[in-house]
Amino acid sequence: MMATVSFYAAYLLCLVLSLVCVVLVAHWNSAYRGGFSWDGTITQFNWHPVFMVVGLVVLYGNAAILYRIPLSWTQDKMRWKILHACLLLLALIFTILGLCAVFNYHNANNIANLYSLHSWIGIATSALFAVQWVAGFGAFLLPCSPVPLRVLVKPTHVWLGSILLVLSVVSCISGINEKLSSVLKKGSNETLPYKQLPPEAVLGNSLGVVIVALALLVLKILSNKNWQRPEPTNEEAGYRQLPGDNN
Amino acid sequence: MMATVSFYAAYLLCLVLSLVCVVLVAHWNSAYRGGFSWDGTITQFNWHPVFMVVGLVVLYGNAAILYRIPLSWTQDKMRWKILHACLLLLALIFTILGLCAVFNYHNANNIANLYSLHSWIGIATSALFAVQWVAGFGAFLLPCSPVPLRVLVKPTHVWLGSILLVLSVVSCISGINEKLSSVLKKGSNETLPYKQLPPEAVLGNSLGVVIVALALLVLKILSNKNWQRPEPTNEEAGYRQLPGDNN
Repeated sequence: MMATVSFYAAYLLCLVLSLVCVVLVAHWNSAYRGGFSWDGTITQFNWHPVFMVVGLVVLYGNAAILYRIPLSWTQDKMRWKILHACLLLLALIFTILGLCAVFNYHNANNIANLYSLHSWIGIATSALFAVQWVAGFGAFLLPCSPVPLRVLVKPTHVWLGSILLVLSVVSCISGINEKLSSVLKKGSNETLPYKQLPPEAVLGNSLGVVIVALALLVLKILSNKNWQRPEPTNEEAGYRQLPGDNN
Repeated sequence: MMATVSFYAAYLLCLVLSLVCVVLVAHWNSAYRGGFSWDGTITQFNWHPVFMVVGLVVLYGNAAILYRIPLSWTQDKMRWKILHACLLLLALIFTILGLCAVFNYHNANNIANLYSLHSWIGIATSALFAVQWVAGFGAFLLPCSPVPLRVLVKPTHVWLGSILLVLSVVSCISGINEKLSSVLKKGSNETLPYKQLPPEAVLGNSLGVVIVALALLVLKILSNKNWQRPEPTNEEAGYRQLPGDNN
């Protein structure tokens, strides 16, 4: 009972931090970076941070902890597996749209792609996420997938799930830092430089801090053994758990 | 037996990646950034990435996995605890020296401190590392520390240990990305700009990739249940493990 109450307190905080992430990244790009478009100008680029934060952090993080919701333990697991897969597919679509936004903007303006460390880590994270989604779909949702395959794949799926969130945070923080360092380098008539912490700098840095806080909370929720789905007592899940694999 | 062989293979890879990290960060700053000094010039700054990578990633990561070395399981645990604490103290000293390098350089040149997102995450990581070291020393090495306190603190110590490595990587990648974006922004007579991937850019990006690879390997070693120290059968460790806490 106490575990349930403390889980829902953590889950509520997770939802609040998710909302704050979305509001901060949207407000940053709408109020300070000129808003949004899909016409090859810099305002098309602005979709990139919004879609990446929404996809790779907010939707991804919330999808990862779905099985920790006690409500899911008493219901048909297949429904929750489908919800998990759908949320992650939505996260993947946002990720792909976020990549399209930056590639289209670069190509329309003859700016090179994939040269920065941020872009190397970011593209590797996105590709690995796509592989993880396809492998997860194949192993856990296709009815023809044999039980031994599921047993074999699950620990890697669970571990890679956490690692992908870590890589997403590395990508987001390096990207936000690069953007703020670039656009606020010298300041202008309208704004102070980054080093004097104008409102945009505080907003962008705060977005980074909230992203880190949300990711750490998700990792904490995932690692708390008291909040893990109890081992299934029937064949509903379609496979038996490995010893020690109670994620 | 197979677990031991596979552990040592992973451990060897960990040592190789550690060495590559040190060589790459030292070579980058010595061959491309003008080398090292402690006189308030930009070459003093060059100690910052070197000390941070050596302290917060290489020494820290290697100290974290010490208890996974099977050799440690049959020997007096106190020796290994002291080695763990000493390696982490060395890591903390490197971290503090790395902070001194950048603060001294900034102060000598009237550059503002602690405004970028990189610096916010980095200083929080360093402070949390210092707190973790002091709390770990107090809880696990002071003879007067009561057993219930050790039992209470251990899961948090273990979890925060992994999280600190994640935060270190976030700090390092955002810092390397910021440095390369800044110094290679426009290129010069001597080098192409970042976007054309001159040798320094490839070197710096590769350093980032190797840091990520090393951290993921350390996290994988920590999470592999087959490689965890067996539950102690005597009071040698000074406390009994919590159920499910076999880190």
